[in-house]
Amino acid sequence: MLNDLIIIGAGPAGSSAAIYAASRGISVRLLEQQAVGGLIGQVSTVTHYAAIAAHETGAGFARRLQEQLAAAKVEVCVEAVHQVALTGPVKTVRTAANTYQARAVILANGSTPNRLDIPGEAELDGHGMNLNAARDGRAYAGHNLYVVGGADGAIKEALYLAQYAHKLVVVHFEDQLGAIPQFVTPLLQLSNLELRLHTRLSALEGKQAISRLQLTDVHSGESHWYEDPGAGVFVYAGSTPNTTLYPELKLEKGYIPVNEKMETSLPGVYAAGDIRVKQVRQIATAVADGAVAGINAAAYVKSVTRTCV
Amino acid sequence: MLNDLIIIGAGPAGSSAAIYAASRGISVRLLEQQAVGGLIGQVSTVTHYAAIAAHETGAGFARRLQEQLAAAKVEVCVEAVHQVALTGPVKTVRTAANTYQARAVILANGSTPNRLDIPGEAELDGHGMNLNAARDGRAYAGHNLYVVGGADGAIKEALYLAQYAHKLVVVHFEDQLGAIPQFVTPLLQLSNLELRLHTRLSALEGKQAISRLQLTDVHSGESHWYEDPGAGVFVYAGSTPNTTLYPELKLEKGYIPVNEKMETSLPGVYAAGDIRVKQVRQIATAVADGAVAGINAAAYVKSVTRTCV
Repeated sequence: MLNDLIIIGAGPAGSSAAIYAASRGISVRLLEQQAVGGLIGQVSTVTHYAAIAAHETGAGFARRLQEQLAAAKVEVCVEAVHQVALTGPVKTVRTAANTYQARAVILANGSTPNRLDIPGEAELDGHGMNLNAARDGRAYAGHNLYVVGGADGAIKEALYLAQYAHKLVVVHFEDQLGAIPQFVTPLLQLSNLELRLHTRLSALEGKQAISRLQLTDVHSGESHWYEDPGAGVFVYAGSTPNTTLYPELKLEKGYIPVNEKMETSLPGVYAAGDIRVKQVRQIATAVADGAVAGINAAAYVKSVTRTCV
Repeated sequence: MLNDLIIIGAGPAGSSAAIYAASRGISVRLLEQQAVGGLIGQVSTVTHYAAIAAHETGAGFARRLQEQLAAAKVEVCVEAVHQVALTGPVKTVRTAANTYQARAVILANGSTPNRLDIPGEAELDGHGMNLNAARDGRAYAGHNLYVVGGADGAIKEALYLAQYAHKLVVVHFEDQLGAIPQFVTPLLQLSNLELRLHTRLSALEGKQAISRLQLTDVHSGESHWYEDPGAGVFVYAGSTPNTTLYPELKLEKGYIPVNEKMETSLPGVYAAGDIRVKQVRQIATAVADGAVAGINAAAYVKSVTRTCV
């Protein structure tokens, strides 16, 4: 079956695009590899987005998106995309189970959080390492909790984890935290904070749980092991755009360049959200990208399917 | 007192800008001539904005903005701006009561709905003419209600007014409605709808209430008077950007051109939302504009006020 529009990724950008495109009366299929909401569904709280309810959680935000998509009659399929063919008037999108076709495609499959790629990470993944604050914070209450990173996302989750942590250790490789004052100011007032600047988490050891961690000073290069049985580690070390699926598109530093209409260099192919070249990466800008891409993709579909004047 | 940042207009763009800028630790004064929310505060329902609560009203949306602004400690002043001076390192903004100064300014004072400028409009303004659907719809229950316009905003409010109208008359000067299928499809199913295409509302008569209305066919030029005592008229005939305050800026068709950072041609002066040149005018894009302008204005303020390295 030929869809009017396929959207890859149901985070804020893809969901917003779907809601707008469907309102224009075209058929929309939304493919998502994990869950509606994308990475936002996993944050402890959603901040700064205009008119958001106070203390809205990522899970709550994702639930609202899901309700809107259902009301807009968008077909949401939880399937990972394996291959796409974007050139030509009919686009093909393959998942493990299905092959879908559409007149237009919106690429909104965002980015994947970076891993540290350090010794012990793979063995302890999900067992103390690479935890999710909103999901795992409470289960690690009373232990020492390590947050790796110094940008907004890291410090916001550190503030959330402080309530559960015996000691909250923020490990950042730079000499200063890079987060906004709204997050840094209350962080520095925490009584259980240990701030480790110009420092990297460089190795882990343990069986089914962390037993000790190695920290390395970026300036001196010196490493020390710290015994810390049962510690929890939460990593916010940037992310990488999910663009390896798209060899047909020219990229800039891994991101997809678009114009003001969110058009890529291929007719009928749009990109929105964290996957595109842009200055400000926030929920607000992802949602706007989706609105613009959805509106323009719907107009494109109507222009190519119109048979009478 | 010299503020870090003054924002003119507390609609979605200006409010979003204030929330982001304040989170960066600078002092923000937000000037609004009427009420937080701007025009959005007056719509019956807010649609399509990602993660909005189902059936959220414009008033509810505005209330949430206000709560966010209070939580962010933004100083909101309800004062109309009369004059500004934007050139140079210190910007001046004058209201009737006060003169404010700031290092940076964000222009987010949107647009003003157009009036029809027809005979009888001024006399009947607020007495049957130029009503607000969310505020006045119920009070006009049982009367014939006229919606002038055919774009999304007009037809969305027409759908809302249908529940109160004896007869719902949609008057649009073009040969087709320009609104999205999501709104047009249910409109055409209304049993109390009278659709008057290629028609203009051309005159009104009455004392303290409408007694009769004149409709003019755009093609034939013929006009007819219709007796309709107590009718209510809701006008959605586009809007005009509020840029007459800014003779220092070059405009494009009345709108302010900006770059990707929402910078105007004057250093330290940003524009966001409906007041700027842009392709898609939606709450979502206004909120994103605000985020981008707020973040960049805060960075600008820090760069010009930094005294040590």
